[in-house]
Amino acid sequence: MRPGKHVFTFGGGSAEGNKSMKALLGGKGANLAEMSAIGLPIPPGFTISTEVCAYYNEHNNAWPQGLEEQLQESVHFLENLMGLKFGDSDDPLLVSVRSGAAVSMPGMMDTVLNLGINDQSVIGIARKTHNERFAYDCYRRFIDMFGDVVMGIEHEQFERVLESLKKEVGVVNDTELGVDELKDLVDRYKAVYRKNTGYVFPQDPNEQLHFAINAVFNSWSSKRARTYRKINRITGLLGTAVNVEVMVYGNMGEDCATGVCFTRNPADGTDELYGEFLINAQGEDVVAGIRTPRNINELNDVMPESYAELLHWTNLLETHYKDMQDIEFTIQQGKLYILQTRNGKRTGQAAVKIAVDMVREGLITRREAVMNLVESRHLDQLLHPQLRSEEIREDEILGHGLPASPGAAVGRVVFNSDHAEEEHAKGEKVILVRIETSPEDVGGMSAAEGILTSRGGMTSHAAVVARGWGKPCVAGCDDIIINYEDQHFTNGDQTVKAGDWISIDGAKGIVILGKKEVEEPEMDDNYREFMMWVDEFRDMDVRTNADNPKDAALALKFGAQGIGLTRTEHMFFGEERILAMRKMIVAENESDRRNALKALLPFQKQDFRGIFKVMAGLPVTIRLLDPPLHEFVPSEKEEIEELAIELKIPFNKLNRKIRMLKEFNPMMGHRGCRLGITYPEITEMQARAILEAAVELKQEGVEVYPEIMIPLVGTSEEFIHQHEVIDHIAAEVFNKKGVFVDYKVGTMIEIPRAAIVADKIAEEAEFFSFGTNDLTQLTYGYSRDDAGKFLEVYMKEGILHEDPFQTLDQEGVGSLVSMATKRGRAVRKNLKVGICGEHGGDPDSVRFCYNLGLNYVSCSPYRVPVARLAAAQAALSVNRKVAEEEAELV
Amino acid sequence: MRPGKHVFTFGGGSAEGNKSMKALLGGKGANLAEMSAIGLPIPPGFTISTEVCAYYNEHNNAWPQGLEEQLQESVHFLENLMGLKFGDSDDPLLVSVRSGAAVSMPGMMDTVLNLGINDQSVIGIARKTHNERFAYDCYRRFIDMFGDVVMGIEHEQFERVLESLKKEVGVVNDTELGVDELKDLVDRYKAVYRKNTGYVFPQDPNEQLHFAINAVFNSWSSKRARTYRKINRITGLLGTAVNVEVMVYGNMGEDCATGVCFTRNPADGTDELYGEFLINAQGEDVVAGIRTPRNINELNDVMPESYAELLHWTNLLETHYKDMQDIEFTIQQGKLYILQTRNGKRTGQAAVKIAVDMVREGLITRREAVMNLVESRHLDQLLHPQLRSEEIREDEILGHGLPASPGAAVGRVVFNSDHAEEEHAKGEKVILVRIETSPEDVGGMSAAEGILTSRGGMTSHAAVVARGWGKPCVAGCDDIIINYEDQHFTNGDQTVKAGDWISIDGAKGIVILGKKEVEEPEMDDNYREFMMWVDEFRDMDVRTNADNPKDAALALKFGAQGIGLTRTEHMFFGEERILAMRKMIVAENESDRRNALKALLPFQKQDFRGIFKVMAGLPVTIRLLDPPLHEFVPSEKEEIEELAIELKIPFNKLNRKIRMLKEFNPMMGHRGCRLGITYPEITEMQARAILEAAVELKQEGVEVYPEIMIPLVGTSEEFIHQHEVIDHIAAEVFNKKGVFVDYKVGTMIEIPRAAIVADKIAEEAEFFSFGTNDLTQLTYGYSRDDAGKFLEVYMKEGILHEDPFQTLDQEGVGSLVSMATKRGRAVRKNLKVGICGEHGGDPDSVRFCYNLGLNYVSCSPYRVPVARLAAAQAALSVNRKVAEEEAELV
Repeated sequence: MRPGKHVFTFGGGSAEGNKSMKALLGGKGANLAEMSAIGLPIPPGFTISTEVCAYYNEHNNAWPQGLEEQLQESVHFLENLMGLKFGDSDDPLLVSVRSGAAVSMPGMMDTVLNLGINDQSVIGIARKTHNERFAYDCYRRFIDMFGDVVMGIEHEQFERVLESLKKEVGVVNDTELGVDELKDLVDRYKAVYRKNTGYVFPQDPNEQLHFAINAVFNSWSSKRARTYRKINRITGLLGTAVNVEVMVYGNMGEDCATGVCFTRNPADGTDELYGEFLINAQGEDVVAGIRTPRNINELNDVMPESYAELLHWTNLLETHYKDMQDIEFTIQQGKLYILQTRNGKRTGQAAVKIAVDMVREGLITRREAVMNLVESRHLDQLLHPQLRSEEIREDEILGHGLPASPGAAVGRVVFNSDHAEEEHAKGEKVILVRIETSPEDVGGMSAAEGILTSRGGMTSHAAVVARGWGKPCVAGCDDIIINYEDQHFTNGDQTVKAGDWISIDGAKGIVILGKKEVEEPEMDDNYREFMMWVDEFRDMDVRTNADNPKDAALALKFGAQGIGLTRTEHMFFGEERILAMRKMIVAENESDRRNALKALLPFQKQDFRGIFKVMAGLPVTIRLLDPPLHEFVPSEKEEIEELAIELKIPFNKLNRKIRMLKEFNPMMGHRGCRLGITYPEITEMQARAILEAAVELKQEGVEVYPEIMIPLVGTSEEFIHQHEVIDHIAAEVFNKKGVFVDYKVGTMIEIPRAAIVADKIAEEAEFFSFGTNDLTQLTYGYSRDDAGKFLEVYMKEGILHEDPFQTLDQEGVGSLVSMATKRGRAVRKNLKVGICGEHGGDPDSVRFCYNLGLNYVSCSPYRVPVARLAAAQAALSVNRKVAEEEAELV
Repeated sequence: MRPGKHVFTFGGGSAEGNKSMKALLGGKGANLAEMSAIGLPIPPGFTISTEVCAYYNEHNNAWPQGLEEQLQESVHFLENLMGLKFGDSDDPLLVSVRSGAAVSMPGMMDTVLNLGINDQSVIGIARKTHNERFAYDCYRRFIDMFGDVVMGIEHEQFERVLESLKKEVGVVNDTELGVDELKDLVDRYKAVYRKNTGYVFPQDPNEQLHFAINAVFNSWSSKRARTYRKINRITGLLGTAVNVEVMVYGNMGEDCATGVCFTRNPADGTDELYGEFLINAQGEDVVAGIRTPRNINELNDVMPESYAELLHWTNLLETHYKDMQDIEFTIQQGKLYILQTRNGKRTGQAAVKIAVDMVREGLITRREAVMNLVESRHLDQLLHPQLRSEEIREDEILGHGLPASPGAAVGRVVFNSDHAEEEHAKGEKVILVRIETSPEDVGGMSAAEGILTSRGGMTSHAAVVARGWGKPCVAGCDDIIINYEDQHFTNGDQTVKAGDWISIDGAKGIVILGKKEVEEPEMDDNYREFMMWVDEFRDMDVRTNADNPKDAALALKFGAQGIGLTRTEHMFFGEERILAMRKMIVAENESDRRNALKALLPFQKQDFRGIFKVMAGLPVTIRLLDPPLHEFVPSEKEEIEELAIELKIPFNKLNRKIRMLKEFNPMMGHRGCRLGITYPEITEMQARAILEAAVELKQEGVEVYPEIMIPLVGTSEEFIHQHEVIDHIAAEVFNKKGVFVDYKVGTMIEIPRAAIVADKIAEEAEFFSFGTNDLTQLTYGYSRDDAGKFLEVYMKEGILHEDPFQTLDQEGVGSLVSMATKRGRAVRKNLKVGICGEHGGDPDSVRFCYNLGLNYVSCSPYRVPVARLAAAQAALSVNRKVAEEEAELV
């Protein structure tokens, strides 16, 4: 290693490092240097470089030459700057010690606070804070923390000593212990320390510091840290840096204070300093709620100079970071220290207002507003009703589930779909509560205000349908146990019966007892202006997934530029249709099947007319029948009996027929184009319905652009087969009506094999649309209905970092998407390529699609604004990257 | 198109074309030219080139200049050569017309025979054959065939006329019609022809010929032919050629004969002329069975010259084609014509004997013997018992199913597994008949002589297990309907009850009523010698899939070089084990689970000791637990009740637990390494059992090479996790025992994603083994248990050309296999790569694996010889290809 500089100081308005030195100083160290360099009054400190860590680990835990001297110099630098002394009984210097690599990672050493306390300096603290109890409480906490974090003594051991002392003294809470008892506790903790380490507790602050520094270095090579780096493929790092920073206190007297503030109002975005503070208090007192903090504006009354200084720095920080800041500060004996600043969390409404305001103020450009100031979850929040969060008490929460579909809903509990429809018809608001839902429940789901399931993941039936409809849903809430027979659910303590009111928040995934108030979303002028900017920078289309005219119209309002996916199967569940559908399914021969299909034709045609009309002038992609047929027939004995009577088929025969439809793995069974190939008459009927609707509307003067999509194609032969069936029907329809409509035939790419042979398929197909839900299922071999069992463990163990059904797995699934796009366009240059899986509304996935050069993403109506934003941000990052690369070339 | 030569004649011991002119003359034309060129006495003829077809189709059905003249010349060539005249009433020339492109394909025109018959020449035929009835029967058949094939008149129309005539005359069979009636029929057929075409039936043979030639050209652009070429991507062909060949007759008198012969005995391989003939007969008479044909040797008695000539040609053909030939011949008025020769079909025993004999005779090299003379199905047949086929009457066949596992079995029908085991224990031979089988049936399957199922495909549970055990199985026999309650099955007419005798032939997929005789296989000296040659040329290893010492020993006998796949789950089904397994599954917590696993450990260890011992000195790949846990627990209420008592768990609790294990798509559910990651203690137990067994055997002096295989890996993180668990246990075991065993840890590649990220996985894994069963399921999205519903239609429609579960899909799945191999070896040069799916025993797939450079294939014991042969053939083709390429370079 290069000899020379090992330690980099910062503080007093300057720094030896800067933000570009992440590799050497770690992320945290580089940041502290940067803040100090721009003049921010942060507590001073120093950073020991990552090179030292590397040396230490390579040289059997030895320190490099010169480190000791530089460490001492740096400590003196701090002592001089603060006018304090390490271990001093009058003016003691205390510091914190933190690890910090170039990339943040778990498994590294926790923070050690108040290092420097010993039997001498504790007296100094007591004197300075005029609070002996505080001083000894700090001391005993320090021994515990140092023992645990630095020396590896179980925290449990200190805890046991504390508990037995409390018993002896006869108190319940720690706060009831007096000064003498705390002094006693310090002695007992020292004994624990000695018993475990074999040494007395180090009184020399320098010795404490040495121990802590080595502990940071050691933590770099701990098993947990190594495994984490291995699994996350973090390589090329030297090691971790060590950050040592002066401790400052807001509780040294009435000239001290501590507080938290935002540079703008995080609830509604108003441009005002917003926050709270406490005089003579520690940071934790502000949040603990024992004393009531005061409004930040009152600081002007009690400490006008500090207030003015704070205002100065908050303005500077907002200008510097070009974003609203969330700032922690402490005033120690009249001197203001900024402890931390970060971009502030805010509501959706505030995010949009702040973005628009900052542009108006000339603080940022529109490009920056779109790029940095509004996140997808902000738009999500803005577009859905919310529960007033201040209204919810912890003890009202019945359970936590998955935030399956955002928005708030309030209603009475019902446990079955028919019941939901009945109550809805009476004007009642209901929440449908099911263990899980199936296609038979869509009627009830549609009638309900929201849906709650106790089983199933983010991509379970309930979740997918609810998101598609923008209906609030909490899924997989296994805190509750549903009992259909007794018509109630329990969460251990409580029993909630059918008819009781509950509220759900589908964005947070919580279920609340009672009828809570809901705030309706507001798409105000700020929103409209912001979305105009979004579309200015965006150059990839956003379409929607919509199965009916209502959803299509909603999506148009949200800015959709066409339909990327119309699922035709949902159209078969209507009351008048399902019987014809079932007749078709149980037909014994082609002619019976054709008759049943004939009855379905007018319904389908009507559906398509409605959608084409709403989407006049825009493309509409219609997917042919996809799910396995057994989803359309009942499975319960009584229902089969009823159906047998309706269809005039002996029960046994019908039952056998239905049993034969059952599959071991329906996801990989007789569905998609496999249906259209075994029963071409189904494809014929659907093609006819689509093209007749299109022809009729064209005759009525409506612009129609139908795109017929063949699902589940795995071989080019399948595509050719179905394509010919469609072309044949098209010729027939156009001939008969004497009108020609320009239609396209393309395919879903959702089978891994289709991605591999995409070049062959593209010879015949005019467009591709990635069905990334199924593609993810098959590429991983995860059944999305069953994966809940292990995905949770996978996320916890770091085997997966994200749920691949929510965010596209770029390495695996994405590689197939990329391969298919390239191979497809190699043979058909202008192949239109889009994505219509759930991922079409996920910002990371949208960015990925943009970078691959896709023509559009398609998502559920409520996700359209989110996708628009993500697409604009993707375009801006690429442009920025290009700009940066060009700059480098100059 | 180039002017000049359009027609190429052959016959009279020479030819204008040769076998290299396939593109111009089509496959058939080039072959006829070749046969003629080597002097074979084939009926003369001529071929109109494919260029003419292209001209015809590009020029609005016009003929190129010069064609007419060349056609006339060629007809004269035939007339002169044969001394016959087109349309002559004394010596009429008749010809056949056939299509023939460079690649054979359906959709092209059928053959037209006897062209040249008209009202005049029919008299000539009657005179020559002394059989007026035959002549007119030919004539009326020709009108039908010409009308149907050339003019597109429905055959049905001729059929109706025939039927009404028969009614008028009062006869039932065509053969009962006399000469006069046939003459009448000719007139009536002419009327049908005129009614449909508007023209009288052409009397001019030249006109007939023109029509037929144009019909062949038109058939090239028929919809069916075009679709076939499109789906099969047949491009670059000019068109089809037209082959016109003189008709010869074996029924013109006592100096005529017709026959079929093999150059060696196709049943046992003896070197003798083998066949049959009939004097004064047509070819169809030999097979029709109306007259009894005579042994070919008797031809020497009646026509010694022809017999000598035949012997001369059969010897020449065998030498020329270097294979046993199946020859059709006709003797017309003393002149021998060879009509057709092709490599003869033969039994396995004959194939091996002929190959070995031919090498001894110096006719072929060992290389040629291995490469060309024995096919995999020959070895398959050789290694399994057979039914004596001459014994089976058509009316004894109860049904046809899939040839799921070769070999013959005879036994009494039983319908459930317990019953099978009981009967077997009593010494009875039984056939287990099930609608389908599940892992719960393995006991019964093992006890049975063979297995018959009415549902499921070539890769259903029954089929896979049976093939693994080399036990005969007919699967998916939907000709029969099984009724468990009444303990019988029916095939429409017949009812077979439990206890009745049936016989099954698993190689042919047939089910026969009654107790048939079985021939045991014989691995004779010829077989041993042949397999030695096979191994001489082979340079890829062949391992076996074996789950127990018995199978391992069997596979060794068949030449396996190690185990490529030991499935550990089958080990849990034993009586003493399944209870511990179930305890493990229903355990409420880790500690209960660990206790149950502790009980399983000694069993597993014992299993592994047994296998390691048999395989001493060879590698043994053991796959950790793979199937979903619900496969190990009962699903019927009574069984669950029993289990509840056994486990001392309340029924409701157990039932809920078991219901929770149920999955929507178990193939993609909680299985494989997902189990090992959620319950690492399972992996720990298995690793411990493997490594303790290995250590103990090493101490006993046995060489052990364990390879631990992690199933269903889709991310490198999963592999790392399980690898660490195994290494941890290994260190513990080795430390405790003080013995170190060299073990490898690798993975199945069976998830598409694993193939994509194979480079990352190979950083950690020491070997890959392609689990192509699951990889095929996921790459296609086909559930192998459900795909039967559409695969049949797919094969019929030409959407799939082969069942991808039997022969590896090289384009899709194979592309992932290739990608994974390349990516894996890019980071780990010596990565050991094998395949252990069903495809490991399929010759085409073995060839593919060889070409990818895999280290080994692994297959069930009975497939090992087949795989050895396929591997040798693959090596020889590559060498041949290299040799050919080198030759080209010279």
